[in-house]
Amino acid sequence: NDPPTSQDTPKGGIQAESPTIAERDNLSKRESGITAHSPMRLRMEAFIKENQQDIVRTLETLDGSRFVVDKWDRPHGGGGISCVLQDGNVFEKAGVNTSVVYGSLPRQAISKMRANHKALDPDVESLEFFAAGLSLVLHPHNPMAPTVHLNYRYFETANADGTTNAWWFGGGTDLTPNYLFDEDVIHFHRNIKDACDAHDKDYYSRFKKWCDEYFHVKHRNETRGVGGIFFDDLDESEKDQESLFAFVQSCMGAFLPSYLPIIQKRKDMPWTEREKQWQQLRRGRYVEFNLVHDRGTAFGLNTPGARVESILMSLPLTARWQYQHEPEKGSREERLVGVLKKPQEWV
Amino acid sequence: NDPPTSQDTPKGGIQAESPTIAERDNLSKRESGITAHSPMRLRMEAFIKENQQDIVRTLETLDGSRFVVDKWDRPHGGGGISCVLQDGNVFEKAGVNTSVVYGSLPRQAISKMRANHKALDPDVESLEFFAAGLSLVLHPHNPMAPTVHLNYRYFETANADGTTNAWWFGGGTDLTPNYLFDEDVIHFHRNIKDACDAHDKDYYSRFKKWCDEYFHVKHRNETRGVGGIFFDDLDESEKDQESLFAFVQSCMGAFLPSYLPIIQKRKDMPWTEREKQWQQLRRGRYVEFNLVHDRGTAFGLNTPGARVESILMSLPLTARWQYQHEPEKGSREERLVGVLKKPQEWV
Repeated sequence: NDPPTSQDTPKGGIQAESPTIAERDNLSKRESGITAHSPMRLRMEAFIKENQQDIVRTLETLDGSRFVVDKWDRPHGGGGISCVLQDGNVFEKAGVNTSVVYGSLPRQAISKMRANHKALDPDVESLEFFAAGLSLVLHPHNPMAPTVHLNYRYFETANADGTTNAWWFGGGTDLTPNYLFDEDVIHFHRNIKDACDAHDKDYYSRFKKWCDEYFHVKHRNETRGVGGIFFDDLDESEKDQESLFAFVQSCMGAFLPSYLPIIQKRKDMPWTEREKQWQQLRRGRYVEFNLVHDRGTAFGLNTPGARVESILMSLPLTARWQYQHEPEKGSREERLVGVLKKPQEWV
Repeated sequence: NDPPTSQDTPKGGIQAESPTIAERDNLSKRESGITAHSPMRLRMEAFIKENQQDIVRTLETLDGSRFVVDKWDRPHGGGGISCVLQDGNVFEKAGVNTSVVYGSLPRQAISKMRANHKALDPDVESLEFFAAGLSLVLHPHNPMAPTVHLNYRYFETANADGTTNAWWFGGGTDLTPNYLFDEDVIHFHRNIKDACDAHDKDYYSRFKKWCDEYFHVKHRNETRGVGGIFFDDLDESEKDQESLFAFVQSCMGAFLPSYLPIIQKRKDMPWTEREKQWQQLRRGRYVEFNLVHDRGTAFGLNTPGARVESILMSLPLTARWQYQHEPEKGSREERLVGVLKKPQEWV
């Protein structure tokens, strides 16, 4: 039951003597390490792994308990590191994952991707690809503290001779509170906006809108949370590769400053049983979005041989569904739902 | 935000003077009530409503608390009755719903359905249809007591002159235990098999297999529970309408006898905190099936204007996702998972 991406090591269209990009990258790492002149694949891999370590260390200090670390290799190159903290002091469940995939895209997947990437050749049977990303979801215990999600990823396809064919960056980060503290939401958005503004004055407003649209729970007619940014398919038609990598680096760098002050302020706030139940209901909505609407989750679950536990790490430890629960008129719960039904500008 | 099925009251292809089937059925009900000579639509509607009342009354006696009843009408005919019991003495959440829908199928939906029903005319812009069904899901508190699901439905499309075009029955029932009591599973399957055998000696084995296939949680490679029966698209190519209605009546009649003895035996059994947590994890899997794989849920959530609360009534009150939980070797939990990975014959 191996993933097709690793079983079907590319043969058709590639000379027998031509090494795969996984082999090239391994050789290059061994011979010269990773420098600013290495291919973007290796630089992105190094970048996400460093950030995973920083984030995990910082969250362990905050929580006072340790992440469980699972590493695995993929048979034809790449692998993943899942760091999960369950039932900690601050976090009910926190996952910080990196994954690096070398594989082969079948024709059908190529033609889908061509919609956004004209450089992809529709006439080949398969195409070598590379994908690397960091994903995190933090669900705190305290109902006053918001859930946060982040994902940044790099994708590349290779020509038969091993040179880069198409490449793009994607990702974003968004906040999901159970109770609105305007100052928290403003702080979160302000930090992201600053990271965006340093690269392009239009990025924040474009990607904030994209985020509200992507994290829309259609059947509830509300957004999953109060947003942040989301973008995908940023390639040479947007900016050169170095500029976009610098942008993703800024976004990643903004994460801890955007979230730490919030969790510090909220983790020890008093809460009532009623507020805990509201948090559990909101967690149910989080599950609904991730299982019904999230394209990444659907893609993962439909990939034969995928590591289901890493994909579903995004789900909360506990969730609740109550028939026809309606927040009280004028309550804080009702105010949250109002904002989710009509996303607003925060900065 | 009305459902398209009721907005688009059929006009194209139907004479202005020709009444809709909803209008015909209303008239017929008023004039002569519902008898054995009434159209199947009206007989099925009466049948599911009677059974809903019986089942609700019986479960109220068992639980010692009352269902909340919500009724609603659809603007162009039909409506629904949702009966929900939450946080009762025996049941954590129990829902028994009926719905009756008169509407219009767009061309795209017709061509999909034609795969199984050749009588459908692919050349019309839209087709009047009728659907009536009873759905129930019972989630008990006690981890030793299994969740049960049942659904029986009738579907019909109308010609422009109001006569029946295509029609079919569908449905089934299945059991989802957290702990295996072989005698319970055997009792449940035995009852259903008897109901099937009275109509066709092949039904049980055909529909038992269909059930195991339908309730397969592909990404976990396990079934949702220990099965039961499932069937769809039973039309004149299977048997005449009266015979199939009689079969569905037998299946519905088998429900209370199949489940009541089980819940009676299990509802007051002692349980530990560890067993409660296992139940919560299994509930998480139930949510995964319903939100990721169930075609009925997906169809409902993608229908504009659908009553989301009635569709998601099937979800448990509470659920849990724990990273990489593995049942202990040789435990009862492990035995259950073994059976879910390899469905077995029970009678």
